[in-house]
Amino acid sequence: MAPVGSKRGVLERLNAGEVVIGDGGFVFALEKRGYVKAGPWTPEAAAEHPEAVRQLHREFLRAGSNVMQTFTFYASDDKLENRGNKLSFTGQQINEAACDLAREVANEGDALVAGGVSQTPSYLSCKSEEEVKKTFKKQLDVFIKKNVDLLIAEYFEHVEEAEWAVQVLKATGKPVAATLCIGPDGDMHGVTPGECAVRLVKAGADIVGVNCHFDPLTCVKTVVMMKAAVEKAGLKAHYMTQPLAYHTPDCSCQGFIDLPEFPFALEPRILTRWEMQQYAREAYKAGIRYIGGCCGFEPYHIRAVAEELSAERGFLPEASQKHGLWGSGLEMHTKPWVRARARRDYWEKLKPASGRPLCPSMSTPDGWGVTRGHAALMQQKEATTAEQLRPLFQQADAKH
Amino acid sequence: MAPVGSKRGVLERLNAGEVVIGDGGFVFALEKRGYVKAGPWTPEAAAEHPEAVRQLHREFLRAGSNVMQTFTFYASDDKLENRGNKLSFTGQQINEAACDLAREVANEGDALVAGGVSQTPSYLSCKSEEEVKKTFKKQLDVFIKKNVDLLIAEYFEHVEEAEWAVQVLKATGKPVAATLCIGPDGDMHGVTPGECAVRLVKAGADIVGVNCHFDPLTCVKTVVMMKAAVEKAGLKAHYMTQPLAYHTPDCSCQGFIDLPEFPFALEPRILTRWEMQQYAREAYKAGIRYIGGCCGFEPYHIRAVAEELSAERGFLPEASQKHGLWGSGLEMHTKPWVRARARRDYWEKLKPASGRPLCPSMSTPDGWGVTRGHAALMQQKEATTAEQLRPLFQQADAKH
Amino acid sequence: MAPVGSKRGVLERLNAGEVVIGDGGFVFALEKRGYVKAGPWTPEAAAEHPEAVRQLHREFLRAGSNVMQTFTFYASDDKLENRGNKLSFTGQQINEAACDLAREVANEGDALVAGGVSQTPSYLSCKSEEEVKKTFKKQLDVFIKKNVDLLIAEYFEHVEEAEWAVQVLKATGKPVAATLCIGPDGDMHGVTPGECAVRLVKAGADIVGVNCHFDPLTCVKTVVMMKAAVEKAGLKAHYMTQPLAYHTPDCSCQGFIDLPEFPFALEPRILTRWEMQQYAREAYKAGIRYIGGCCGFEPYHIRAVAEELSAERGFLPEASQKHGLWGSGLEMHTKPWVRARARRDYWEKLKPASGRPLCPSMSTPDGWGVTRGHAALMQQKEATTAEQLRPLFQQADAKH
Amino acid sequence: MAPVGSKRGVLERLNAGEVVIGDGGFVFALEKRGYVKAGPWTPEAAAEHPEAVRQLHREFLRAGSNVMQTFTFYASDDKLENRGNKLSFTGQQINEAACDLAREVANEGDALVAGGVSQTPSYLSCKSEEEVKKTFKKQLDVFIKKNVDLLIAEYFEHVEEAEWAVQVLKATGKPVAATLCIGPDGDMHGVTPGECAVRLVKAGADIVGVNCHFDPLTCVKTVVMMKAAVEKAGLKAHYMTQPLAYHTPDCSCQGFIDLPEFPFALEPRILTRWEMQQYAREAYKAGIRYIGGCCGFEPYHIRAVAEELSAERGFLPEASQKHGLWGSGLEMHTKPWVRARARRDYWEKLKPASGRPLCPSMSTPDGWGVTRGHAALMQQKEATTAEQLRPLFQQADAKH
Repeated sequence: MAPVGSKRGVLERLNAGEVVIGDGGFVFALEKRGYVKAGPWTPEAAAEHPEAVRQLHREFLRAGSNVMQTFTFYASDDKLENRGNKLSFTGQQINEAACDLAREVANEGDALVAGGVSQTPSYLSCKSEEEVKKTFKKQLDVFIKKNVDLLIAEYFEHVEEAEWAVQVLKATGKPVAATLCIGPDGDMHGVTPGECAVRLVKAGADIVGVNCHFDPLTCVKTVVMMKAAVEKAGLKAHYMTQPLAYHTPDCSCQGFIDLPEFPFALEPRILTRWEMQQYAREAYKAGIRYIGGCCGFEPYHIRAVAEELSAERGFLPEASQKHGLWGSGLEMHTKPWVRARARRDYWEKLKPASGRPLCPSMSTPDGWGVTRGHAALMQQKEATTAEQLRPLFQQADAKH
Repeated sequence: MAPVGSKRGVLERLNAGEVVIGDGGFVFALEKRGYVKAGPWTPEAAAEHPEAVRQLHREFLRAGSNVMQTFTFYASDDKLENRGNKLSFTGQQINEAACDLAREVANEGDALVAGGVSQTPSYLSCKSEEEVKKTFKKQLDVFIKKNVDLLIAEYFEHVEEAEWAVQVLKATGKPVAATLCIGPDGDMHGVTPGECAVRLVKAGADIVGVNCHFDPLTCVKTVVMMKAAVEKAGLKAHYMTQPLAYHTPDCSCQGFIDLPEFPFALEPRILTRWEMQQYAREAYKAGIRYIGGCCGFEPYHIRAVAEELSAERGFLPEASQKHGLWGSGLEMHTKPWVRARARRDYWEKLKPASGRPLCPSMSTPDGWGVTRGHAALMQQKEATTAEQLRPLFQQADAKH
Repeated sequence: MAPVGSKRGVLERLNAGEVVIGDGGFVFALEKRGYVKAGPWTPEAAAEHPEAVRQLHREFLRAGSNVMQTFTFYASDDKLENRGNKLSFTGQQINEAACDLAREVANEGDALVAGGVSQTPSYLSCKSEEEVKKTFKKQLDVFIKKNVDLLIAEYFEHVEEAEWAVQVLKATGKPVAATLCIGPDGDMHGVTPGECAVRLVKAGADIVGVNCHFDPLTCVKTVVMMKAAVEKAGLKAHYMTQPLAYHTPDCSCQGFIDLPEFPFALEPRILTRWEMQQYAREAYKAGIRYIGGCCGFEPYHIRAVAEELSAERGFLPEASQKHGLWGSGLEMHTKPWVRARARRDYWEKLKPASGRPLCPSMSTPDGWGVTRGHAALMQQKEATTAEQLRPLFQQADAKH
Repeated sequence: MAPVGSKRGVLERLNAGEVVIGDGGFVFALEKRGYVKAGPWTPEAAAEHPEAVRQLHREFLRAGSNVMQTFTFYASDDKLENRGNKLSFTGQQINEAACDLAREVANEGDALVAGGVSQTPSYLSCKSEEEVKKTFKKQLDVFIKKNVDLLIAEYFEHVEEAEWAVQVLKATGKPVAATLCIGPDGDMHGVTPGECAVRLVKAGADIVGVNCHFDPLTCVKTVVMMKAAVEKAGLKAHYMTQPLAYHTPDCSCQGFIDLPEFPFALEPRILTRWEMQQYAREAYKAGIRYIGGCCGFEPYHIRAVAEELSAERGFLPEASQKHGLWGSGLEMHTKPWVRARARRDYWEKLKPASGRPLCPSMSTPDGWGVTRGHAALMQQKEATTAEQLRPLFQQADAKH
C-alpha cells in the first residue's frame, strides 16, 4: 500500500499512460442501502450516516478505485432546498463531512480525493451565469479548504453550464475533469459530443468525457466522438467515462431518466460483471484511461473493471482475493454441473435470461421535449402540490 | 427503540399474531461488496472484515428486520475445508465473531439473534447420521455459549438431513425454525413439501418453511402446500419464507443453482421493490408470519416488505425516512414527466423491460439428475484438478 | 401416383406400421386467404368459393398429406345459424360440396377422404344426448352418401360429447378417429387425457388423440399420456395428433382460445419448418403414426413433417421438388453469407428473434372458469347485441 | 365490377389523388404453398403451376389490390440459370405465362397489370451497362407484346442499376414505377434515399419508393426522406411503398437478407393485421398513395390496408365480406371472454407475445461488408460446390 503523501496526482498518472479507475455512483448504491432518498437524491448521509458512506468508499477502494469522489452530488444549496426537501444539515456541513470521509478512506490505499460539482436547478430555472457560478464557488470553498486532489464537474445536460463550472474550478489551479451526461445525440440543446468536448477543453478541462444517463458501450461510443473532435481541433486532453450499470438500448437523448423504469424498476437492466469486463476492454481500446462508473455500479462492477485491466495495470485489486477470475471460484462448488461453469468461455457466451416472460425487452422512453427555460422545468423551494401533480398524471396517462 | 433485555422471543411474537421480518442473504450481498468468495461461499468475513458484516446487519435492521441471523452459513468445518478452500480463521473463530456481530447490532434495535446451521458436505458424501449430527453440534456449542435467541436449520435439500439438524437443535430448548431450499416438487428425493413439513414439525420444529432456491411467489406457493399438510395432520406450527430476490419461472426441482446464469449472471432476474411488496402481501394473505429473504435481497427489498406490512405492524422501518411510499419521493424530481411517476398505480402496472433484446426471457436449467450418494457428488478436501474439470466441461458443452 | 380405387384404407396402413400424414387446418388458412370469417368460423367457402378450397387441398396433397379432410368444420346446422351468422347455402349443400372437393383432389394422389364432425353449440347449451346425436347424424348422412373413406370426430372439449359422436360414427362401419382439443390437464370437466382415451376407445374409436388448442410438443405429450392409459387398460388403438402451428407455453386448460392474442395476433407464435420437423420426429418416436396439423398449419408445415419422415416413408412429397432439404436451396443464393446458412446444423441451433422488443414472450391467458351448462355459455340464433357485449367488455377490462 | 377496357391508368388514379393498393410478394407466399424454391426464388410456377399463381392473384384482387404484378420476379435469363438452377421452361415462356395470368385475373375486377423487372446477377458481376440493359429489354419485349398497363423496376440494391432499368422501361412510353430495396441508410454504395429518389425521377420514373428488405414503418420513413429530397429538387413524382410483412428493428443496410433468420425462421416477425392497418395509416399520412406489400404479405395483410383506407377510398374490398372490422366477427364467438375481444380498442393496445421464452427479441445481422464488384459476389451458372461452401461455413461459424 502506498505511503500517504507520496501519491502521484491524476494528471501525472494519466500522462504516464496509466489507467485510473474511478468509483461507482453513491446515490443509487446508498439508496438501496437505505441512506439516500430517491427524488431529491441529496447526499446528507455524509453527515447523517458517515459509517454507511465510509463503508461504501472502502468497498470501492478494495475493488480497485484510484479516486474517492466526495459524496457531494447535488449538494449545492439551491438543490438541497428544492421542492420541499427538508434536511437537518447545512450544505457546508454535508460538503465538509463528505470531504473528510473521502480523505480518510483514500489514505487507506492508493487513492486520490476528487471534489465534485453537478448541474444546478438555478441553471434550469434560467438564473444568470453569475448566480450559477456563485453556487459552484460556494461548494468549491469547502473543497479548497479540505484540499482535495482534483475537481470534477460532472452530470451536466447542457454544455454551457458545464463550461461555467469548469471555468470556476479551473481558477483553483487543481486538475479539472468535466463529464456531461449525454449520449451520441449530444446535449439537451443538440450540441454534438464533439463540439461539447472541444468547448470543455477550451474552458480549461484537463480530462473530458461522459458520465451517467447511458450504458457503458454507448458512453464509450460518445467519448470516441469527443476524442475525434478534440484531436481534430488540435487540442489535447485525457478521456474519461463513468457510465450507468444499466443497459439502455432504448434511450433517447435524455438517457435513462426518460425510461419508464427510472428509477425504481431498472433491476432487469443491471450489467453483469462479465459485461463490465467488456466495457473496460472497449474503453481501454478506445484510448480512454480514466474508467469508472455511475448509477447502478456496485463494488463488484468496479472490481470487474480492475480485473479486466489487471495485465495493463500490473496488479489485481484487494477484493480479488474473494473472486476467482472468470468464475474459477466455482471449481470449489459442490455440484459438478456448476463446476462446469468455472471458465471464461462459458460466461462470455452466455446470454442471460430475464426470468420475466411477461415483460418486454425494450421500453418507449418518456420525455416531453422540453429543456432549460421551459416553464415546466422551473424549480421551486416548496413541495410539489397535488394540484401541480394532477395534470402531470393526466398527461402521462394520455401517452400510455 | 426497545430497551435491551426486554425483548419478546420469536414464538411470543408469532403466537401473538405479529409479523416477524427476517433479513436478507449475506452471502450474495457480501459477495457483491467484495468480502465473500463465490464457489466456496464461506463466511470468514465475520472474522476477517467485521466492519463490512456489521454494516450489512445495520442496513437490514434499519430496513425493518426483526431477526439478525449470525453470518455462519456453511461454517461447518467440513465445508470450510472443502475442495481446497484455505482460510486464516477456524470455524470456531468465525462462528463466535458472527455471533458477536449479530448481537451487537440486534441490541441497537428490536431484533433477535438467530444461530443458523445448513446442509453439510458430510451428508452429501453419505456420512452416517451420527457424523452429520456431530457437525451440527459443533456449531451449536458456539450458539449456546453466545446465547442466541433462536436457532434456524436452513438450506437443506434433503428433508432427512434437516430432521437430523432439527433434532440436534431442539435438544437445546431454544425455539427452532427449519427451512428447506425446495419448491413445489419437493426435496431432492421427491418427498413432497407437505410431507417434508410434517416430518420437520414432528422432529421438533416450531416454525417451518422454505428458503433460497426459488422466487418469492414460488416459495409462498410451496409453504401453502406445507401448511395444508401440517394442518391436515392435526399438527401446529408457524410458517416462514426466505426466498430469493430473483425470478425463477424456468427452474426445475433444484432451483436457481441449475440455471445457466447461476451465480454470475442473475442480474436481469432481480426483483424490484414493488414485486417485493407483492410478495409480502401474498405471504401475509397465505398465513405466513415470518417473512424474510435470502440470496439477492438487498436492504431495500426488506424495507419493501416492511412498508407493505406497515399497516399490520403499526409502524414504518427507520429506513423509510429515506423512501417515499410508492414512489412519492419523485414529487421532488426536477423533471415533470418523472414527477408523473410518483404514484402507486404507475409502479404496480409497469412491466419492466430487460434492456437486453439479444437475450431470451427464460433459460433451460442444467441439472444432471444426481443427488445424495451419487459418485459425482462426493466431496473432497483437495482442490478440484484440471483432470477433474475436463470431463465436466465436455459433458456441459455436449448439452448446449 | 396410385390408381384410383386401389387405395388401401387408413387402418390397413396403420396396421402395417406406416405413417399417415394428415392435412392442416382449413379454417385458419382460408381466413387468411379471405374465404372464412373469424368468429363464426363456418365452412361455407366449400360451396361459395370451391376454387379456393380445392387449391388448398391440392397444396396439402402436394406437401405430403395422405388424408383430405372434408371442409365441414362447424358445418352442423345449429352452428351455421348461431349468433346471427347468415349464409346463402344450407348445411347439406356445404357438406356435399366439401365432400366432392376432397374426393376430387384425393383422386389426384394417394390420399383418402375423411368426413369430420366437431363439437356442437347444442351440447354446450345442455341439449340432450339424443338431440346432440341427431345433429351428428345429419352431417353423417352426407358422408355416407358421398362414401368417404374414414370418419373423424375432432375438436371436442368434453369427452362425453366426443363419446356420443364416436357412437354415432361407429355405427356406419367406417374406420373412426377421435381427437379432443385438450392438453395434459384433460378435458373441460377435468377428465384426464388417459381416461378420455380409454373412454373413446371403448366407445368405438380406432384411432385416438388430440387436435388443435395446443402446440405440437404439448400435443405429443398429451397423446403419450393417452397411449399409456389405453395400453394399461389392455386396449388397442392407433394414435394421432393434429396440433396448432402456434407456440403455446402460456396456455391453461382451454388452450389458445384463452390467449389474449387469439385469433388475430398469433403471428409471432407460428412455428418454423424446422420446429415442425422436430414435432414430426418426437411424434414418431412416441409411437404416433397419424401425424397432421390444425390451425396455423400452412402447406410448408406439412411438407416439413413429410421431409422429416421421408426415410421412414421411403419417399419425399411432390412439393419437395421446390425445397432444398435443411435449407440446401440456399446454395444457389447470390450472397455468400446466405449460402453459409445452407445446412441443417445452422437451422437446428437458431433461436429465432421475435423482432418485437416492446412485446413480452408470454401472455396471461383469459378464461372465466366456466364450461358446459354455465349461463354464460348458452348459445343463441340471434346476433349478440350491444347490451350483451357491454358487461363482457367491462369484465375483461377489469381483469387487465 | 368495372367493365374491361374502361379502366383508368395508374397515373390517372394517382393524379386524381386516389389510393392505389398494390399486391403482396408472390415469391414468399408461393414458397409456403409449395411452388417456389427458396434460394433461386425463380418464378417458373407461372408456367408450371398456373392454377396456384392464378389463385394467389385472385386472393389479392379480392383483398383489394388494384395492381396485379406479373409473377416475373427474377425471370431474367441470367438469373434463371444462376448457380445450377435447372428449369423446364424458358424465360420467355415464364414471362408470357405470367402476363396472361395477371391479365386474366385483373379483368375479373378493377385492377391493372404491371410488368416488373428486378436487379440482375449481371450487374453484381460487373457486366457493362449495355449488357445489363439488354437483359431488361428481353423481359420488356414480352411485357410490350402482352400490353401491360404499367412497368415496375423493383428490388434494386444499387441506384445505378435501377436508373438503367428505368431508362429502358421509360422508352416504352408506359408509366414507370421504380422502387429500391433500401432503408434510411441508402443504397449499397451509400447513396442516400433522397439522392436515389432524385436520380430515379430524373431517369424517368413517374412513381418512386421502396420495396422489400425492411418493415413497413421503416419503409415509410425512407420514402418520407425520398419525398423531401424530390420536392426540394423541384421535381414531381408519386410515392410508393411495398414493404416486408416482417418486423426488422435489428436490420443494417442490407435489410432482412442479413438477419440470421432469413429466409426460413422469420415467422415470429410476421405483422398482424392491426399492425398493417397502422402501416396503411402512416403511409397515407406521409403522402404515399401507392401502398402495397412484398415478402411475407398474405392476402389478409392487403385486406387490412384496404380496410384501414376504406373511408378514403369509399368502399371495402370483397374479402371484407369475410372479416368483421376491428375484430367484430368475434361477436359471434361461442365463448364470452372471446366476444369481449370484439373491438378496436382491444386489438390496438395488445402487445402480442412471441410464445418463445427461450428466444431473443432481436438478432445481430450478418453481412460481410461486400457489394457489387467484390469477388465474393461474382455469380456463376454452375451449382455451388462443397469446396466453395466450406470456407463460407467456417467464416460464418467464426462470427457466431
